[in-house]
Amino acid sequence: MVAVMSDSRRVIVSHLPEGPLDPSDFTVETVPIPEPGPGDVVVQVSAITIGAGQRAGLQGSASYAGAPTSGILMGGSGVGTVIASGSDSVAVGSKVAGPTGWQEHALLPATDLRVVPGDLDDALHLGVLGTNGLTAYFGLLRVGDPQPGQTVVVSAAAGSVGHIVGQLAQIRGCRVVGVAGSDEKCRLLVDELGFDAAVNRRADDFRDQFKAATPDRIGVYFDNTGGAILGSALFRMATQGRIVCCGAVSAYDTASPEPSPRGIPGLLVNNRVRMEGFLVFDFADLYDDGRAELAGWVETGDLEPRHIEYEGLDSAPGAFVDLLAGSTVGTTIVRV
Amino acid sequence: MVAVMSDSRRVIVSHLPEGPLDPSDFTVETVPIPEPGPGDVVVQVSAITIGAGQRAGLQGSASYAGAPTSGILMGGSGVGTVIASGSDSVAVGSKVAGPTGWQEHALLPATDLRVVPGDLDDALHLGVLGTNGLTAYFGLLRVGDPQPGQTVVVSAAAGSVGHIVGQLAQIRGCRVVGVAGSDEKCRLLVDELGFDAAVNRRADDFRDQFKAATPDRIGVYFDNTGGAILGSALFRMATQGRIVCCGAVSAYDTASPEPSPRGIPGLLVNNRVRMEGFLVFDFADLYDDGRAELAGWVETGDLEPRHIEYEGLDSAPGAFVDLLAGSTVGTTIVRV
Repeated sequence: MVAVMSDSRRVIVSHLPEGPLDPSDFTVETVPIPEPGPGDVVVQVSAITIGAGQRAGLQGSASYAGAPTSGILMGGSGVGTVIASGSDSVAVGSKVAGPTGWQEHALLPATDLRVVPGDLDDALHLGVLGTNGLTAYFGLLRVGDPQPGQTVVVSAAAGSVGHIVGQLAQIRGCRVVGVAGSDEKCRLLVDELGFDAAVNRRADDFRDQFKAATPDRIGVYFDNTGGAILGSALFRMATQGRIVCCGAVSAYDTASPEPSPRGIPGLLVNNRVRMEGFLVFDFADLYDDGRAELAGWVETGDLEPRHIEYEGLDSAPGAFVDLLAGSTVGTTIVRV
Repeated sequence: MVAVMSDSRRVIVSHLPEGPLDPSDFTVETVPIPEPGPGDVVVQVSAITIGAGQRAGLQGSASYAGAPTSGILMGGSGVGTVIASGSDSVAVGSKVAGPTGWQEHALLPATDLRVVPGDLDDALHLGVLGTNGLTAYFGLLRVGDPQPGQTVVVSAAAGSVGHIVGQLAQIRGCRVVGVAGSDEKCRLLVDELGFDAAVNRRADDFRDQFKAATPDRIGVYFDNTGGAILGSALFRMATQGRIVCCGAVSAYDTASPEPSPRGIPGLLVNNRVRMEGFLVFDFADLYDDGRAELAGWVETGDLEPRHIEYEGLDSAPGAFVDLLAGSTVGTTIVRV
């Protein structure tokens, strides 16, 4: 039975999806638990997170996630415990977070991992204190820089990044409007997460509702979607408003993405709008500061991160499909 | 014959153009020379300038130039001499510049005018020291902020703003690439104005030429056109590059503007590109500083503003059509 104990399961991208992602694009394989070389550690993964942006890495063309490939371990962030160490700096028993990928055991250079407090739920490390929270934090507060009283709009507002953006905007003293994919999510945003308004992007009269929800126009639009919602926001921007381009989920999981929005560059000129793409990795030097401030808001209750949980590594492909279908709220966590 | 001396001619927008502008969209009428009230002056206009951006004011929908209207004096900047004054601050005989419109005599509040040195050619006041030069100056140096060694690309590069942008980028120590509408203009940009390269936007292999001209990708793209050139530039932006959205001349003089460029917002995210619309009027507090620096560069010969001249107020509508057809180089000046 010792042989069984030394096996480890992992999820492989068996082929790049054409059109919407399907669980059949992935396979699970079993391999031996690796041994650490000098400087490396082996992490027993306890949870991974899945983000919509990872879909970009499976596109047919290169994106910020790098050129696509198949037949390899599915990448992604995870949390776990070090069970073997060849590193002087990270001891066995340490709780760590980093790019574990979708697997039960990850062999990684210790320098790729950060040691995290052992007493917090994995979901916090992977959500509000992980890439999702930092993306919301630096994207909204550094790139968008909304001022108190301004209207902040966020798309995919119930998503892993969006639901934090909206709460950070409230902390900043802004009026906050979310755009989400169902009436149920819109109710949750307003009733439970303190949004001032939320609009269902699937509503027949979406544009009218969106206009009504932004009577003072939009100071900062945090765009997770691109496509038609970006198009609507462009027509509602305030003078010298800012659009934070975080992602284009509307274009990820399809072979025929929505066309670019109309009115570019004319609307940008008329209203002196700044539209800026960013990647959270550019703020890596400031992560510790960001995490400290986010953790403080979680502790005071000003910020209530949400997550949805799946059990077992085998549930990860299905969780990814659910995420892209827009049926989840908050950060997607798979307990491994 | 005294009656004749007191007549003044002016150009009226007789109807808003549908499709390309035509001289028949304007009429010339004769009115009495006005008398100044308290605080006003009467300016005998010696020259006006025409900018492509003015076409936006004649669109079927509101733009930054305000809602369109017909049956009124055609607006625009001019230079002239004060021949009657009801103002304590601006004396008869002063040379002034301001929003004279297309007319021989303008009645204006003295506060709308700036007194300019009498010993410079009107073309300088209306070109490099007027809105065109200031647009190039603040757009490139403040909004774009290129760094030495970066590649700066400017569209409508032989135009009133573009030919100054390219020269300012050279002063800043950048590699400069122009996009213009004819081989002749491209030659002029390289041979006479010091551009490192220039590409004819009408060339069959424009995209290949454009790519070859930007081997280090684009640090700052100064966009005067929108449309297909903006689309090409988006695919050539360097990481953290900036797009300065100054105008959309490709959309002004047509009933069917080019579609928005592809890849928004995806390309902005992948390369962390900032795209920002601006209007020079937002920098009004800094005009004096800008003019002083521009005048210094003209004096040292680092900056060689170009203009094309037309004679007589009646030539103004035709000059506007020429400008929009892309057949002119530098600032368009009509000697009244």
